[in-house]
Amino acid sequence: MWLTAAEISDLARGAAFLGTGGGGDPYIGRLVAEQALVRSGGVELLPLEALPDDALVIAAGNMGAPTVLVEKLLSGGESVAAVRRLETHLGRKATAIIPCEAGGINSTLPVLIAAEMGLPVVDADGMGRAFPEMQMETFGVYGVKASPMAIANEHGETVIVEAHSNHMVEWIARGIAIRMGGQCSIASYVMDGRTARDVSVPGTMSLCLQIGRIIREARQSHRDAFAALIAFFPTTHYRHARLIFRGKVTDVNRRTERGFALAHVRIEGLDEWAGTMELEVQNENLAARVGGQIRAIVPDLICVLDTPTAEPITTERLRYGQRVTVMAVAVPPIMCTPQALAVFGPTAFGMAKPYEPLDSIPISATPAGPI
Amino acid sequence: MWLTAAEISDLARGAAFLGTGGGGDPYIGRLVAEQALVRSGGVELLPLEALPDDALVIAAGNMGAPTVLVEKLLSGGESVAAVRRLETHLGRKATAIIPCEAGGINSTLPVLIAAEMGLPVVDADGMGRAFPEMQMETFGVYGVKASPMAIANEHGETVIVEAHSNHMVEWIARGIAIRMGGQCSIASYVMDGRTARDVSVPGTMSLCLQIGRIIREARQSHRDAFAALIAFFPTTHYRHARLIFRGKVTDVNRRTERGFALAHVRIEGLDEWAGTMELEVQNENLAARVGGQIRAIVPDLICVLDTPTAEPITTERLRYGQRVTVMAVAVPPIMCTPQALAVFGPTAFGMAKPYEPLDSIPISATPAGPI
Repeated sequence: MWLTAAEISDLARGAAFLGTGGGGDPYIGRLVAEQALVRSGGVELLPLEALPDDALVIAAGNMGAPTVLVEKLLSGGESVAAVRRLETHLGRKATAIIPCEAGGINSTLPVLIAAEMGLPVVDADGMGRAFPEMQMETFGVYGVKASPMAIANEHGETVIVEAHSNHMVEWIARGIAIRMGGQCSIASYVMDGRTARDVSVPGTMSLCLQIGRIIREARQSHRDAFAALIAFFPTTHYRHARLIFRGKVTDVNRRTERGFALAHVRIEGLDEWAGTMELEVQNENLAARVGGQIRAIVPDLICVLDTPTAEPITTERLRYGQRVTVMAVAVPPIMCTPQALAVFGPTAFGMAKPYEPLDSIPISATPAGPI
Repeated sequence: MWLTAAEISDLARGAAFLGTGGGGDPYIGRLVAEQALVRSGGVELLPLEALPDDALVIAAGNMGAPTVLVEKLLSGGESVAAVRRLETHLGRKATAIIPCEAGGINSTLPVLIAAEMGLPVVDADGMGRAFPEMQMETFGVYGVKASPMAIANEHGETVIVEAHSNHMVEWIARGIAIRMGGQCSIASYVMDGRTARDVSVPGTMSLCLQIGRIIREARQSHRDAFAALIAFFPTTHYRHARLIFRGKVTDVNRRTERGFALAHVRIEGLDEWAGTMELEVQNENLAARVGGQIRAIVPDLICVLDTPTAEPITTERLRYGQRVTVMAVAVPPIMCTPQALAVFGPTAFGMAKPYEPLDSIPISATPAGPI
């Protein structure tokens, strides 16, 4: 598929949905990629199956606190610089770019990089959503090393990190992201095409496009976008989606700490939704509780959408008074294996709760379900 | 000159003196280099004049909070790894190692590296003492770039930092040092032999040896080591030394923060010394005041010595009750130029005070001088 500037709004909106609150502001992500697509005439979106076995695939994106991104804008040049730096280190040229995550600007930055470098972008990613830390990649869960990682900032300054574990790469890189002002661009998880097919969450760029289009078309034709999304997901490997709350944002306790955007959010129920939903946020929405009971938990998606428009709202844009609808989506089987849950399940975030798959949480059993 | 294990105690003691409280524990520094010297049979200590014009000189040492070093020991392998990593990055081999600073373990680690790599160590350094930050180098003051810097830890994990300013290299590297547990090894300031002659503080390794020997010999022959040192410095390019206080340590307010060992130290006067001396410490002793008046200020040396033995005491070993004698030493002219003071004078540490050269501070004018 050939991806042009005409599709970029849908891509950015869908990416904000899969970002589950994180991944950075989709408006900025759209602007950045749009220009590159206009200049280049578009990029090829390459399905995993079409990737040559011996392709040199490099994962790219931004890391840091999304809150920072609102003030510290990016040009995309730093993302290209990170990939170029990794190429120099390897002594080899990338033949395809794969998004490190499916979320926010990290679905559009790889498009920009691919456009600038004249490469295809792979229709897949390593998170199937957005996660806050760089070791939280299916790439790593299934054996690809984050090391060597190249890091670049907007001044053309670069760092190469080589560490034994993906967790140590994240730990060092996060320190560098903080010192670079809370955001930096990275290139990492070097792999060949055959490996990429085994370790990636497939089709997530197309998925962003479809989610973005469904919301836009429903809005244009005055249909229920939430119902349209709930009907759509069972046709994908994400299998299952449901509304888990609707209400008004009454408190956003947000702080940028340790290089992350942390938050605790309270939403008071409206309409048929009783009680108060509490969201735990580390860049992304990690857990949604009503009356202390889990409605959805990481790695399943917890997406906060604007009730009137169904537009996804990223964490750094959440504020008092917003009318929001919270939707949960089950993640594909590749993300629910014991190995995957060890890396990005609830315990990886320090929660005592084990993973509760969305479809195992009964709707009626929760104390304040729709009545 | 051929440096062997027999000289290492004097070298480490003199390095602790020039370390002015910082540079890390000399006992650890001695142990590390001693073994390497025994194994290798010694290393060549090369005067700046003997360095070939086209030599590839690499500055090496450790960075981080000296307090950490007491618990997080080092093998020296990480220091060799940092130099090797920089060589790989450059695609060239070092032909000589120069100490990044003259102080504590950073005078003995380069000896270890040279011994392990079969290279000479240059009889010079880039600080003429110890300073807490990596941009505080005469190398940088006179035009050599800290970038590229290689960083290594005890697990063989490495980072290459490339940044435009030496200050940014320090800023990023400090973040990495923190993430590596508060200490890491670095290799940086790549230069040729001709450049090294122009930008280094000459003879500081020999100086460490001489200082160490003077203290040891005075102690063995029951002579006054302080008087011997004060008589010695005017024969060197350090020109001038004097006692600025003697007393008992009554308070050490120490904290490890931002990757540094910070402290505020109080010493109550004893014998003919009245009043209280207050020391400001960022890894090194930066300013010594009595009754609010400066007795000595950075970049001049402020050395805290054990009164009974004249053994230098590093900041992390200072504690309540120690009887100490504080000696100040003027630094060589290369370290007092306006360019040098901009990088490591009082204002570079956020002090409002301008530099007051030691020999411009009248002894009798201070409110509580020797009476």
